[in-house]
Amino acid sequence: MTTYTAPVDDMQFILHDVLQISTSGVPGLDELDPDFTKAVLEEAGKLASGVLHPLNKVGDEQGCKLENGVVRTPEGFKAAYDKVCEGGWIGLDCDPEYGGQGMPNLLNSCVGEIFVAANMAFNMYQGLSHGAYNAIHTHGTTEQKQTYLPKMVEGTWSGTMNLTEPQCGTDLGLIRTKAEPQDDGTYRISGQKIWISAGEHDMTDNIIHLVLAKIPGGPDGVKGISLFIVPKFMVNEDGSLGERNAVSCGGLESKMGIHGNATCVMNYDGATGFLIGEMHKGMRAMFTMMNEARLGVGVQGYSQGVVAYQNALAFAKDRVQGRDVTGAKNPEGVADPIIVHPDVRRNLMDQKAFTEGARAFALWGAQLLDRSHRSDDAEAEALVSLLTPVIKGFLTDKGFETTVLAQQTLGGSGFTTEWGLEQFVRDARITMIYEGTNGIQSLDLVGRKLGLNGGKTVMGFFELIKTFIKENEGDTALKEGFLDPLKAASKDLQGAATYFMQNGMKNPNEALAGSYDFMHLFGHVCLGYMWAQMAKAAHAAKANGTGNAAFYDTKIATGRYYMARQLPATGMHRARIESGAAPVMALDVDQF
Amino acid sequence: MTTYTAPVDDMQFILHDVLQISTSGVPGLDELDPDFTKAVLEEAGKLASGVLHPLNKVGDEQGCKLENGVVRTPEGFKAAYDKVCEGGWIGLDCDPEYGGQGMPNLLNSCVGEIFVAANMAFNMYQGLSHGAYNAIHTHGTTEQKQTYLPKMVEGTWSGTMNLTEPQCGTDLGLIRTKAEPQDDGTYRISGQKIWISAGEHDMTDNIIHLVLAKIPGGPDGVKGISLFIVPKFMVNEDGSLGERNAVSCGGLESKMGIHGNATCVMNYDGATGFLIGEMHKGMRAMFTMMNEARLGVGVQGYSQGVVAYQNALAFAKDRVQGRDVTGAKNPEGVADPIIVHPDVRRNLMDQKAFTEGARAFALWGAQLLDRSHRSDDAEAEALVSLLTPVIKGFLTDKGFETTVLAQQTLGGSGFTTEWGLEQFVRDARITMIYEGTNGIQSLDLVGRKLGLNGGKTVMGFFELIKTFIKENEGDTALKEGFLDPLKAASKDLQGAATYFMQNGMKNPNEALAGSYDFMHLFGHVCLGYMWAQMAKAAHAAKANGTGNAAFYDTKIATGRYYMARQLPATGMHRARIESGAAPVMALDVDQF
Repeated sequence: MTTYTAPVDDMQFILHDVLQISTSGVPGLDELDPDFTKAVLEEAGKLASGVLHPLNKVGDEQGCKLENGVVRTPEGFKAAYDKVCEGGWIGLDCDPEYGGQGMPNLLNSCVGEIFVAANMAFNMYQGLSHGAYNAIHTHGTTEQKQTYLPKMVEGTWSGTMNLTEPQCGTDLGLIRTKAEPQDDGTYRISGQKIWISAGEHDMTDNIIHLVLAKIPGGPDGVKGISLFIVPKFMVNEDGSLGERNAVSCGGLESKMGIHGNATCVMNYDGATGFLIGEMHKGMRAMFTMMNEARLGVGVQGYSQGVVAYQNALAFAKDRVQGRDVTGAKNPEGVADPIIVHPDVRRNLMDQKAFTEGARAFALWGAQLLDRSHRSDDAEAEALVSLLTPVIKGFLTDKGFETTVLAQQTLGGSGFTTEWGLEQFVRDARITMIYEGTNGIQSLDLVGRKLGLNGGKTVMGFFELIKTFIKENEGDTALKEGFLDPLKAASKDLQGAATYFMQNGMKNPNEALAGSYDFMHLFGHVCLGYMWAQMAKAAHAAKANGTGNAAFYDTKIATGRYYMARQLPATGMHRARIESGAAPVMALDVDQF
Repeated sequence: MTTYTAPVDDMQFILHDVLQISTSGVPGLDELDPDFTKAVLEEAGKLASGVLHPLNKVGDEQGCKLENGVVRTPEGFKAAYDKVCEGGWIGLDCDPEYGGQGMPNLLNSCVGEIFVAANMAFNMYQGLSHGAYNAIHTHGTTEQKQTYLPKMVEGTWSGTMNLTEPQCGTDLGLIRTKAEPQDDGTYRISGQKIWISAGEHDMTDNIIHLVLAKIPGGPDGVKGISLFIVPKFMVNEDGSLGERNAVSCGGLESKMGIHGNATCVMNYDGATGFLIGEMHKGMRAMFTMMNEARLGVGVQGYSQGVVAYQNALAFAKDRVQGRDVTGAKNPEGVADPIIVHPDVRRNLMDQKAFTEGARAFALWGAQLLDRSHRSDDAEAEALVSLLTPVIKGFLTDKGFETTVLAQQTLGGSGFTTEWGLEQFVRDARITMIYEGTNGIQSLDLVGRKLGLNGGKTVMGFFELIKTFIKENEGDTALKEGFLDPLKAASKDLQGAATYFMQNGMKNPNEALAGSYDFMHLFGHVCLGYMWAQMAKAAHAAKANGTGNAAFYDTKIATGRYYMARQLPATGMHRARIESGAAPVMALDVDQF
């Protein structure tokens, strides 16, 4: 029942009007002219609307099935996957040395949003592969890269990340999976991993598992963890597939959403593994990939909001019920379309203003990542590192909320399976949990990232906003609707940070008890900053007479909405933070 | 995997320490002494924990099945329903003239919370019957009452409410179901109703449908709607069952949650119906039941939060992961229970402070309803009428949010079906939609209820809070933590109401665009008011040396949390409201 259309114009606006990528001086971004990106995004959009989205409900309804150790993905998934491979999408931003197209992360993020919005469960298969590709590409030996990457880049092999065990998720120091060194330099991997997305399936010839495990005798806790490559099928010297390795899927998780993706219990029964990166430095290897993976989940979060909004909007224009109190808008019909009602409008504007702001924020993050990788820009690297937990935590919380709002637009229909909105809610929910729960993101932000470079990185972020406000203060089109609220919100953020600095040293709980609110406060400031930039770009484009004036007017009005209706949340978050740790920690455990 | 324990002590505290029912001067409430209510609540709790809750997951997994026109409820539902009937729970607050126990709505609300928390889908079967009972009891003729009520009160027959049709939910003026007068005084009912909860099932001998329909030739719109009794089986003069009526279930809705309850398409193919109440006054008849039904949905909303919180808390005490940053709390174990972490604590406190405040608010509403019915108190009636959309809208929005928070406490386990938390989220979601979406509640609040009695009712509400603050201002135990934030929140609410008054006359959209925020603002003020009263009652009980001091200390600390961490939301809602309708209505429909 649902449909999806790639928001190509909105993405083009961000890439070229706002981020101005082709003049950003970053190798790789410079070459992306508007015609090229448009062609790529439209092509991705066709695949998304025509092939991936129609399978979204199929995947939800059929789910995956484990039969005699083999996982069957939903009907049509394999054929669709082959089309994605044929289009070269799997290796879009991968290293050309291994068959990739070498495109920037920024473009890959746009395509990622399109594919994920169309079918999140489906896209996770390649998403996880990409994480495994990154791990091998960054930490593997030349031989490892040559053995695994070409097949992973073309998509004939896929990959997984194996971290969680029943007794440990966040606290990986508790890992029990063992890696015993063998005489031939390989390791014998034994243990059980759970919640392994795409751990087993029927879409690729081989699956390359990346597994965290402990080598006996190593240091305790996270310092004794190493990372291993464990292929499902051993790879012969000539690249052909050899024996089946001793790794198998022991069960599929039944879960709230993303039914089309196989969430596996993986049993390693003395499987052959190959150390990747340094011994006992597996956590470090994992963390180097974390930024990109978390940015990817941030994109997943708001992308479900995007597709949910599109369908809510269509419903609100189509469904007639009641009359506009200021006068009938559809007098020849029995009632007016519900979009005339102010409260429906509020709901839709919340969805629209968030998702468009979120996209700008996530793409800014991707641009910073490209800048850090391609221009060796340490400042950009630090800034994206600061913003990553905000992009992951805030955009997934609000993305989920957006799917709930969209579901609400449909009233009773929103609760039915038939209309499809409820699936977006169920699918979006996982983004708040995996790749580090949003609580963990907030701890990362407050506990690690605020102190990055002795606090210089966050000060640099405040400076960015201050400078932007200063430079544009004379612009009356921006002053009242954008710059003033941004200034107030930024003041709340700085006030909250100051509270942490003044109180967190004496009692770390003073900072930790406010971390979640701080993450949201930070997110609102970032979206306010993005909307101010979008408004500026829209005014400039209008002044230049380029493009469609109505499009830019819509951007400006949507931005005004965000500033007026969403940004006031910063005062609330600040007040909560400044109420301190005492109310949060008042009860003894046994008083609960 | 989940468990449920009735919160008897918490309920006793509200009934006797806070609402002080046995000295409230309301007939029926006066007789409810603490020993009696405790015995009733404990008995309900046993049934809920031992019989109803174990069927919660069964109902979700099996759902209902339609086979040859017969709806099969999940295994065990019928046996459990019989136990509920045997205990006399169905007729707890029903008229003794028809076999009921004549208990106040307040006590029924407590039992309702317990049953709904244990198994919402199951409890809806009797919940809908209760609505139908009310309609017949209030509007039926003596003969109609004698024919239907005794069987409905004992539970051998159930009832339904039939409002929605494919083309109309909120806008009932668009109803097409026809009721043609017959020579014998009956009506021939033809049409299709959708989303009829418990429309068909195998738990009772007969189902009494209450159906809104139009008598041809009547006025257009809602003024031409009449209400009819349409029994599944005709009832013979001696009370025995006669022929099957021409009403049947044409399909079951597949939906996000409450799978254990049959949501039916009902086809009326010239069924025999009996007019109930006045011709063309069907909407009025429905509305007289609305307050109670909506209060009931408010209870459903927070009750899912209650059971979700109980399970999240158990997990947080049991699951060990990481260490308390201020020093290990479980040094002999490999890690500390996650409840030591401030952000987990924040999450749990949000759940606890909301659900306990919500219960107090809903029970206050029930007490007002009893006062209005049993003491013919017009002021109480007006006040509960004002508060009803807030209880329905705010408590279901926040109840749903609470289930999401509880799910988050469990991390990845929260997303799995096995742990059961995700079911609470899916089940709670409907409460924001049915019995009038929460958007509709906010319109009811702002469009109808604020103007009740020329605004005197809402002024009376403000006065209540003002008086409470004034009377207790000298109490240093309450001043800073409770009265000051309540005063600030109440000021925000009055400010927002003033904004509506000053701007809504010129342009109704100025009020309507802020209605949803106003409903939440109002809800926070009410919960703040309840927590202030609970804190006062707890201090008084401590001073009297009655009961368990630790219990009262916990109440006070939980209240402080609400005031410090939740009440600051009022400023945000007010700012959103005062930003006016312009940002909300800025876009033309085709700009979306």
